[in-house]
Amino acid sequence: MANPIQFETSPANYRHWRVTYDNDIATLFMDVDEDGGVFDGYQLKLNSYDLSVDIELADVVQRMRFEHPEIGAVVMRSGKDNVFCAGANIRMLGGAAHSHKVNFCKFTNETRNTFETAGIESNQPYICAIKGACAGGGYELALACDHIILTDDGNSSVALPEVPLLAVLPGTGGLTRITDKRKIRRDLADVFCSMEEGVRGPKALKWKLVDEVVPNSKFDTAVTDRARKFADKSKQKKPVRGVELTPLGRKMQEDGSFSYSSLGVTINRKAGTAKLTLAGPELPAPTSVADLHRLGANSWLLRMARELDDALLHLRFNELEVGVLIFKTTGDPEQVHAHEKMLLDNRENWLANEILLLWKRVLKRVDLTSRSLVALVEPGSCFVGTLAELLFAVDRSYMADGEFEGDNRPIASITLTQANFGLHPMSNNLTRLQTRFLGAPENVEKAQNAIGQPLDAEQADALGLVTFAYDDIDWEDEIRVFLEERASFSPDALTGMEANLRFAGPETMETRIFGRLTAWQNWIFQRPNAVGEKGALQRYGTGVRGEYDKHRV
Amino acid sequence: MANPIQFETSPANYRHWRVTYDNDIATLFMDVDEDGGVFDGYQLKLNSYDLSVDIELADVVQRMRFEHPEIGAVVMRSGKDNVFCAGANIRMLGGAAHSHKVNFCKFTNETRNTFETAGIESNQPYICAIKGACAGGGYELALACDHIILTDDGNSSVALPEVPLLAVLPGTGGLTRITDKRKIRRDLADVFCSMEEGVRGPKALKWKLVDEVVPNSKFDTAVTDRARKFADKSKQKKPVRGVELTPLGRKMQEDGSFSYSSLGVTINRKAGTAKLTLAGPELPAPTSVADLHRLGANSWLLRMARELDDALLHLRFNELEVGVLIFKTTGDPEQVHAHEKMLLDNRENWLANEILLLWKRVLKRVDLTSRSLVALVEPGSCFVGTLAELLFAVDRSYMADGEFEGDNRPIASITLTQANFGLHPMSNNLTRLQTRFLGAPENVEKAQNAIGQPLDAEQADALGLVTFAYDDIDWEDEIRVFLEERASFSPDALTGMEANLRFAGPETMETRIFGRLTAWQNWIFQRPNAVGEKGALQRYGTGVRGEYDKHRV
Repeated sequence: MANPIQFETSPANYRHWRVTYDNDIATLFMDVDEDGGVFDGYQLKLNSYDLSVDIELADVVQRMRFEHPEIGAVVMRSGKDNVFCAGANIRMLGGAAHSHKVNFCKFTNETRNTFETAGIESNQPYICAIKGACAGGGYELALACDHIILTDDGNSSVALPEVPLLAVLPGTGGLTRITDKRKIRRDLADVFCSMEEGVRGPKALKWKLVDEVVPNSKFDTAVTDRARKFADKSKQKKPVRGVELTPLGRKMQEDGSFSYSSLGVTINRKAGTAKLTLAGPELPAPTSVADLHRLGANSWLLRMARELDDALLHLRFNELEVGVLIFKTTGDPEQVHAHEKMLLDNRENWLANEILLLWKRVLKRVDLTSRSLVALVEPGSCFVGTLAELLFAVDRSYMADGEFEGDNRPIASITLTQANFGLHPMSNNLTRLQTRFLGAPENVEKAQNAIGQPLDAEQADALGLVTFAYDDIDWEDEIRVFLEERASFSPDALTGMEANLRFAGPETMETRIFGRLTAWQNWIFQRPNAVGEKGALQRYGTGVRGEYDKHRV
Repeated sequence: MANPIQFETSPANYRHWRVTYDNDIATLFMDVDEDGGVFDGYQLKLNSYDLSVDIELADVVQRMRFEHPEIGAVVMRSGKDNVFCAGANIRMLGGAAHSHKVNFCKFTNETRNTFETAGIESNQPYICAIKGACAGGGYELALACDHIILTDDGNSSVALPEVPLLAVLPGTGGLTRITDKRKIRRDLADVFCSMEEGVRGPKALKWKLVDEVVPNSKFDTAVTDRARKFADKSKQKKPVRGVELTPLGRKMQEDGSFSYSSLGVTINRKAGTAKLTLAGPELPAPTSVADLHRLGANSWLLRMARELDDALLHLRFNELEVGVLIFKTTGDPEQVHAHEKMLLDNRENWLANEILLLWKRVLKRVDLTSRSLVALVEPGSCFVGTLAELLFAVDRSYMADGEFEGDNRPIASITLTQANFGLHPMSNNLTRLQTRFLGAPENVEKAQNAIGQPLDAEQADALGLVTFAYDDIDWEDEIRVFLEERASFSPDALTGMEANLRFAGPETMETRIFGRLTAWQNWIFQRPNAVGEKGALQRYGTGVRGEYDKHRV
């Protein structure tokens, strides 16, 4: 970990994106710095991207919501002359470790989802204005936008050339969004995904690959007009002042453990675990919306969400041998409850709403983190509402039953709130409790009747909210045995098992992208036809095509 | 292809299963012959299975429906004393090629689906009676049954020990059926799938892993009673005489091409293609149900379905370098129409119904065949109803427009029938036309209005039923270019692309098994932690555990 990848950034540090603000319309220029990649050994030519570009994009989208709530439409376009975006950088993909490829795709998918939902959730729809080649991951950027405009200059095109050119899939949602979002006929989709050169102008419109095709001479006007229309439709029109997302101030220790204001992460390398301890609020809840705005990025639930998000990304990319994440909380349950209640009571306020929406995204990031997840509910903990949601995100949970010798903190309890019953849906669009109780929906109702009551281990166990409850005598041994056992399993088998067990019930475009599409892409990312010496990814740019083993599997 | 795997079998040749018939109840004894495996180098100990066992099981289930329609309940149990079934044979998995593992899992999944649907479709529910260890693929056999009875002898257990023991997934539907069919709480599922030893007796019932636990002394009586109850519930009680599934009589040629009575398969090794030509009926349609029964296995649509099914399996397992399947038909459209109509008009007759249900399964087998699929609609062809369904199963279709020089056969046409609008749902539970027109549901209605009319290329194209229509001048070139292009792509990328594009729309347990679960398993089947020299599959049985790279991906 000589050079851990940093996920925190800010506009002053951007190398790949420029943003301009014009009243309620923002324009986002993709203008990738060829030399600004995460790793050495490749240049980000033709607006191709690697993780560094996506880290900035994720930051742009996040800040748009918090710092620029006045924005009612975002235009995404290229800052370069002849190309919109050439997609993920192939040399980067060719050189990266399998784990980096997989994590990179997951993060880019999560980022696509954040701006895809910004229209509905935050009245910030994204409009993609395409001039020049828009290929592969470039078109996948477009597919996640609310509206796609393509110039008809006889040259500009959209394409998903991964299969013919690179022997991999359009895996950043491409295949899924053309069938499930744009609902393109499957045989036309087959033709489209087999074309290196892509589709231009009117044909792209006819095939529903874009929403609007305009003559090149009218392109800028059309984009401006369309953005105006979207901004006018955005309900939240009055300019308000945003809240600055201040630096997180992460402190790293020598052994790789790290901490923020409210979150400590302790790494145990020998055991292959990271213990994430979320600390409850130090200060009482804001007393008014004005108070919340004054606190801004320092308000506890906003801070905690950002810290947890950053920690998860750091662990995913930089701590590959940490196989188990252990979630703990510490603090006063009533204070946690009060902080959450303040937001819930003021959801009509944009900031309160954005903080809750951020939690929804961070909790999804937990669901999608391919490490074994466990929660320990101990004396002195504060698993309340949104924090209790972690208990239903993890693979299993252990709860301390009653008093523990020599521990004078309050006995362990769990408190459900309104937040556990609809505020934070998973990718499958069910709440975590609905997913948990698919086989016994009546248990959701029983749990709902317990809202607001601190539940001890016996009660929580009876309601099916925890996996195991142990008293002082068994606690340590049981957890030790579990962690040792988990560490002895194949990480790959655990990844596959967890990806299947976590998402029961209905499927959505989102679950399909992270489930089916990703799993196939991961498989292909292992195949010699793509990544072998003679594979297409390795040979790309050499002028020699990939050489394929013709055996079908 | 010195020793191609044979999928056709019959009771006289069974080595692994015994079936007894007692009025309306059949009992199916799994009694695997250790030396009866497909390959050398392993013994099928402890009722473990390889493809040979599953080929017989698929035959049993098929014959139960056609030859024994009087059966109203099927009991599946072990023919050995101390074990129900130890699951897929690990040494076979350890030694098999990646492609065989993947195809083996797909076929076993398809076989599980055939008996899982036999209860609802054919009034032949399956009851699994477990005595002895029932582990991994053994428990997955049970999960696909309608009812699971476990003896409480202090020893017998159900288990999914794949992850801890073998570093692979319970990939024959196991993970999906415990969350989506039995709806077991995800954290308990996590615990269960982490246990080598499995779960016994009352706990198995409490966790909903089985439906019934009975004392060992009462086991046989309980099984008989339960079978009686199921048989009594089966609507179709009166004993009727079945229809014998006579030998297919496949003829093999030296170059690997082969044919049956109504299906010819021509292999072009250089091009990597197989052309499947389905010939229309030689004889007029049966005039009555009695006539249909008299014809039995010789009736055209039953014969054709069985031949196509056998051909698909042969191509999947024995012709790995055939990357493209080209579907053609030849014959009189009106005759095809008449044969199908006879079955549709007599669906209340069990045999007519079973033939149509078989087509549903065979068409699903087409959907799930991981080769590029293309249909050519040429002069003289007979794409009508059920055969036209092939046009909507393939990845793309080409239709000949108008007269072709020197070809005096009738110009190409397509005729839709009632069969295209609900009779043959895909795994996603939509019809192929509904899936095709997800983005334009009104087109389904337009197509429905054209039922019964022979549609020429222009009409078919206007209705969106074919991908391309070409006249005599372009036809050959266009198809040649397409086939060459397809052959130049990576087979793996095509597999992933097709698996994603074919199944738009809703997901079902079935699509999740073949999509998400299978894709993850295929990924794991490539990982060194499972299949490498030190991987768990290779080391199984040596007494040394697998050694794992602890990096999470």
